[in-house]
Amino acid sequence: MNEGAEGLADTADFATRSNALALGVDPVEADDRVRPWVRRTPVMKLAKGSFGLEHDIVAKLECLQHAGSFKARGSFNSALAAKIPQAGLIAASGGNHGQAVAYVARALGLAVEIFLPSASSPVKVQRIRQLGAKVTVVGDLYDDARLACNERSAETGALNIHPYDAPLTVAGQGTVGLELMAQVDRFDTVLVAVGGGGLIAGMAAALPDSTRIIGVEPDGSHCLHSAIEVGGPVDVEIESVAADSLGAKRLGSLPWAIVGSRVESVVVPDREIIEARQMIWDDARLAVEAGGATALAALASGAYRPSSDERVVVVLCGSNTDPHDLIDRV
Amino acid sequence: MNEGAEGLADTADFATRSNALALGVDPVEADDRVRPWVRRTPVMKLAKGSFGLEHDIVAKLECLQHAGSFKARGSFNSALAAKIPQAGLIAASGGNHGQAVAYVARALGLAVEIFLPSASSPVKVQRIRQLGAKVTVVGDLYDDARLACNERSAETGALNIHPYDAPLTVAGQGTVGLELMAQVDRFDTVLVAVGGGGLIAGMAAALPDSTRIIGVEPDGSHCLHSAIEVGGPVDVEIESVAADSLGAKRLGSLPWAIVGSRVESVVVPDREIIEARQMIWDDARLAVEAGGATALAALASGAYRPSSDERVVVVLCGSNTDPHDLIDRV
Repeated sequence: MNEGAEGLADTADFATRSNALALGVDPVEADDRVRPWVRRTPVMKLAKGSFGLEHDIVAKLECLQHAGSFKARGSFNSALAAKIPQAGLIAASGGNHGQAVAYVARALGLAVEIFLPSASSPVKVQRIRQLGAKVTVVGDLYDDARLACNERSAETGALNIHPYDAPLTVAGQGTVGLELMAQVDRFDTVLVAVGGGGLIAGMAAALPDSTRIIGVEPDGSHCLHSAIEVGGPVDVEIESVAADSLGAKRLGSLPWAIVGSRVESVVVPDREIIEARQMIWDDARLAVEAGGATALAALASGAYRPSSDERVVVVLCGSNTDPHDLIDRV
Repeated sequence: MNEGAEGLADTADFATRSNALALGVDPVEADDRVRPWVRRTPVMKLAKGSFGLEHDIVAKLECLQHAGSFKARGSFNSALAAKIPQAGLIAASGGNHGQAVAYVARALGLAVEIFLPSASSPVKVQRIRQLGAKVTVVGDLYDDARLACNERSAETGALNIHPYDAPLTVAGQGTVGLELMAQVDRFDTVLVAVGGGGLIAGMAAALPDSTRIIGVEPDGSHCLHSAIEVGGPVDVEIESVAADSLGAKRLGSLPWAIVGSRVESVVVPDREIIEARQMIWDDARLAVEAGGATALAALASGAYRPSSDERVVVVLCGSNTDPHDLIDRV
């Protein structure tokens, strides 16, 4: 599977990629665009025996990405593809996307405003300010911030970068999948955490249809799971330790159009997410956030049990965390 | 440079490797031995502009190794090459080596005793206990622990694994160099932190003579620097923030026999080490210990200035740290 990804979109194993392309989602084009700006994050084998697992697992260390999550990819892709207005960039975000957009603005020398709900973690709010963004905290939930952001962007004309429901965003996140294909010789299955669906849709648009994609969500925040259950995006209640990164109320309609009939869904309880976050610190000294540990939690808890010969990749997707609550144990 | 390392030892560019082999230090043999047990740690490009650097640098993320440092390599090599006595393993250590030996003992199901000086960081002492080792804290400095350990091993017959002044230890650490040759297409220079000299000697035994090797030490703990100055190992005073990992009073005689005429030396002040540790957290969310940030400090502070076309690798060699003092900034 480590042949170049280009030129494969028309083969039988890339029906999802063709479908995504028709929706304007082109990870290969995004990859060319963002390559000089984003970090090619490494992969690392987690040994058999770690995390109670009976076989080796490959971790994609996207937690080491600029601005601490995969969000830098979609944000760079969106900004680099556009003619940027005088007012620069604007975004609403639970926190990670806001950090990414602020990082992109700093890198490209642009003005930037970020709208956040009060639920955002203080670490993220502070980092966005430190990146030089004008920050507005408004309402309790992401949706409140989104509405305020939309109003403001209509006023100023700033380029509004959506965190997951936009083709350039999804295409940028898909570069994680293209990188994986170049880095890991063969793999059967990828586990990836799901918030609004941008990353999983990008992965689905990048990877061959024969690669199994498992979306993992907290059992208190599972808009993908519900969408699969009822056959389309619906509003869900949000209460989870990972809400500040995975707490989208409703799966994006563009992500749904790509992943609807393509991916599988698993949910995990908060306590398993907390445990998985601690385990990856114990095992490899990686400080990830709750959302970044959610996909690993599906493996460590047994919510997803690979078969004995299944070659599994888990994406550790974010590290915007305060490490002070990690405890010291082995 | 990414051809297999085997079979190169007799070529003109591997005089140091031949010399090391004659001293019983064989990284290629060690690599075969430890491969199933140690983590192949990833490399990652640090972007131009990070750390005030004018060009890309490759970081070898040995901080993600089992037991939090490269020491697992030498310890596994020493244990796997030996017939293990009934009493198991024993070691004296500033902390990282002790953790590694305790980790090896747990992995191989062996009894283990570790002797530590009171200067060892509480994090390290606790982790060694949690790994199931019998711990004795004795004296103020590593040398006190070493003497007590030697006495005890004479009593019990346990296999005493030296942290740096033994061929199997040095050969095991050299597998970092062999991995680098396989992972990074071409590089001119490697920066590596120096305590007693085990890692730098292993690297010198692995890498071609044409690769420049820079040993980096705190200006308050620089036994390599002094050895080069006076033409052989001498005692130095120790006072540094990185003393618990790099605080060897005297370079090992075996390391000296390998690196004496082969490597260069740079020293950095503690404040630059502290700053580099914070910078790699800011930039990539990697929590490394002071010793693990010391090689990076040489680059970030300008103590070592690569030329504009020099391809540089920096080894981040340890992460046995309490992350609570990392501050939140970007």
